[in-house]
Amino acid sequence: MDQNKRKRVVIIGAGFGGLWVARELSGSDYDVIIIDKNNYHTFLPLLYQVSAAEIEPEQIASPVRFIVRNFANVRFIRGQVGEIRYRDKVVICLGQQIAFDYLVIATGSVNNDFNIPGVLQYSFPLKTLDDGMILRNHILTCFERASFVDDNKQRKRLLTVVIVGGGPTGVEFAGALAELISGPLKKDFPELGNEAITIYLIEAGENLVGMYGGVLSEYTKFQLEKKGVKVLLNSAVSKMDKTGVYLKDGTIIETETVVWTAGVKGQLVKNDLNADILPNGRITVDEYCKVPGYDDVFIIGDLANFLHNGKPLPMIAPVAIQQGKYVGTLLKAIQKGKRIKQFKYIDKGGMVAIGRNKAITQIAGLKLKGYIAWIIWIFIHILYLIGFKNKLFVMINWIWSYIFFEKSVRLILPRCCDNPNGDACLQRGRICKE
Amino acid sequence: MDQNKRKRVVIIGAGFGGLWVARELSGSDYDVIIIDKNNYHTFLPLLYQVSAAEIEPEQIASPVRFIVRNFANVRFIRGQVGEIRYRDKVVICLGQQIAFDYLVIATGSVNNDFNIPGVLQYSFPLKTLDDGMILRNHILTCFERASFVDDNKQRKRLLTVVIVGGGPTGVEFAGALAELISGPLKKDFPELGNEAITIYLIEAGENLVGMYGGVLSEYTKFQLEKKGVKVLLNSAVSKMDKTGVYLKDGTIIETETVVWTAGVKGQLVKNDLNADILPNGRITVDEYCKVPGYDDVFIIGDLANFLHNGKPLPMIAPVAIQQGKYVGTLLKAIQKGKRIKQFKYIDKGGMVAIGRNKAITQIAGLKLKGYIAWIIWIFIHILYLIGFKNKLFVMINWIWSYIFFEKSVRLILPRCCDNPNGDACLQRGRICKE
Repeated sequence: MDQNKRKRVVIIGAGFGGLWVARELSGSDYDVIIIDKNNYHTFLPLLYQVSAAEIEPEQIASPVRFIVRNFANVRFIRGQVGEIRYRDKVVICLGQQIAFDYLVIATGSVNNDFNIPGVLQYSFPLKTLDDGMILRNHILTCFERASFVDDNKQRKRLLTVVIVGGGPTGVEFAGALAELISGPLKKDFPELGNEAITIYLIEAGENLVGMYGGVLSEYTKFQLEKKGVKVLLNSAVSKMDKTGVYLKDGTIIETETVVWTAGVKGQLVKNDLNADILPNGRITVDEYCKVPGYDDVFIIGDLANFLHNGKPLPMIAPVAIQQGKYVGTLLKAIQKGKRIKQFKYIDKGGMVAIGRNKAITQIAGLKLKGYIAWIIWIFIHILYLIGFKNKLFVMINWIWSYIFFEKSVRLILPRCCDNPNGDACLQRGRICKE
Repeated sequence: MDQNKRKRVVIIGAGFGGLWVARELSGSDYDVIIIDKNNYHTFLPLLYQVSAAEIEPEQIASPVRFIVRNFANVRFIRGQVGEIRYRDKVVICLGQQIAFDYLVIATGSVNNDFNIPGVLQYSFPLKTLDDGMILRNHILTCFERASFVDDNKQRKRLLTVVIVGGGPTGVEFAGALAELISGPLKKDFPELGNEAITIYLIEAGENLVGMYGGVLSEYTKFQLEKKGVKVLLNSAVSKMDKTGVYLKDGTIIETETVVWTAGVKGQLVKNDLNADILPNGRITVDEYCKVPGYDDVFIIGDLANFLHNGKPLPMIAPVAIQQGKYVGTLLKAIQKGKRIKQFKYIDKGGMVAIGRNKAITQIAGLKLKGYIAWIIWIFIHILYLIGFKNKLFVMINWIWSYIFFEKSVRLILPRCCDNPNGDACLQRGRICKE
């Protein structure tokens, strides 16, 4: 009856956090079940390149079963967890009860609209592979429509893209989009001539990529403006509707394309845990990534509010990866009756690409910008991308677009909410999913 | 006013036929408009490999604007043609009237259900890139669900795939699917163990790939059976419902996955032409690919019923390509006041892959089977695939799967009709598009 003695770890979410727990526990004496609503892990740091038609969606996705295939003690379930019932020590998934001894919640985050009216209905998020493809479809469709309409005002609306949020995602997407438009799309749509295509990047704060500050922020702004991006700082959005974006200072930008990268909030599953949920949806965990009061429930990644020197850790991949590894190690230590130190985050720095040859990085306190930073950015992203073939294909795509000023395949793949004679998606691609 | 003297050719459809007309007319004194509801051309001969997760959808698609970019006199419109009004010499597209002097109709074909009840509702077509992705999603979802259900009967239903139609598409898909399942999926789903996964290939006639006949048909059947495919000859489908497939001999095969490759019919746009439409949807054209009675309307490809030695030409890519080139040449000759000979089809033979190392080909009367035929199949398909990067990526994928017995990325990409906790698509992925 050795089988019955094996404790079971259930991990919800196959993002960076969940996957690294599973990896760490492979070959251990636990039975591990990892649950995700998708059958693949998404390498989110490159998602913006999918929307900018730089790489193909398949290239940043890796099937979970492929990743855990050689871990004999790890099983995958594709399904959405409906509920966590701690009192019964089960999660409800696909109508069944899945028992756990230890639970790791690594469900990540969703867009935070900060209750600004219209954001959910009228903007495009950039949080999932599907979001990435819907946005690509939409932008290309706007260009197709613009090439056919006679009304100048309508054409201008179609050729205006507003990106809200001057953090890394907003900056990277703005840079990539500016290059997509000034390069391949200009060649693809000669009929648009010197038509005013406008990309706005709107940031509520004083700086782009504020976490880097000073020289790097200014460099980022300078480079984006050189590419033609209109950067509006200290500009907050007051509402959105089908006309476009309304700023607090009264400005109205008419557009069909608003991309929302202004912030995220924790995404929690319905549960009977007695945990405090912060206004940003995160749950404060203790120094072992445990939910206070529970010895068998861990939260890691974007959902976890882990206080580091009194400040919450940022919602970025390296935190999730380090916490995932840590919880895996901790669980193994528990089994062996060993004690383990509390979780310690090692800040390895960060980096943001601004397009061709340009990036900013901050590594071990060293601030770099320009070409060298860009090479480091490429190297790190290829290194962490899962799957050798994905690495290879992404590299080929990048080299290709570098040499030929060309982007990957610019396809508008049909979706059931599409209408080839009208809007890409009347519901902006999202509502019909729910 | 030279501009006004240029005659305009409108081409409906950017498949093999339409695209080759546009290519032939590039640089001519015509203004050419090519219209398609998709912004890309699909290399349909490899579509079955998308469904079998062998290659990625992007790799068999090429943006029309990319293809015609260097043809100064060719313009692309993405939209669905609602109607052809010959009396006004216009086509209606996106709510506007597009005038033509010459019209080329190259809309291809759609699935033919032969009025068998349930085919439209309960089977998966394999005619468009979207069809290919929906079928891939569905098959992978069936495996995910099978790995989780306890009911044996339900699991067996989920793991049974029925392919109807023993022509080239049915055979190629059956072979590729058998390899996907026996290779990567077996490794991905260890929990399914030695579960009976069954692939049926159902053909109403006496032979698989009947057009090749004799030795090649028998070889094809032998090779598919060796891969575990259950081939049922002389078996006609009487109806389908949500249970599965009903054969005329009373057999019922329970399944959630029926793939319909049993035949196509011409796809025509609403029009006021006085043309005879055959029961299979095709329109008989004269020896110049013209609609009888009209000097300025051409039909090419699958939609055209061109009689060659008294028999209609088959609905295959080489016919469309040759007719496209021919009509382009003819139009240029008209402009120069030259006469041109009638269209003559050159039968270059055909080929069908049966999976790893195995194919049949018939070239210039020479029948080949096995490894050499397979190498020829690979060479020809890479040669005709549009776009160098597509050629490269497809080759890498093929070499990869050849060496590692691995298939490309096995992703279930979400669609709005998906429900991660239930059916891949309750409507079998199609109805919600309409």
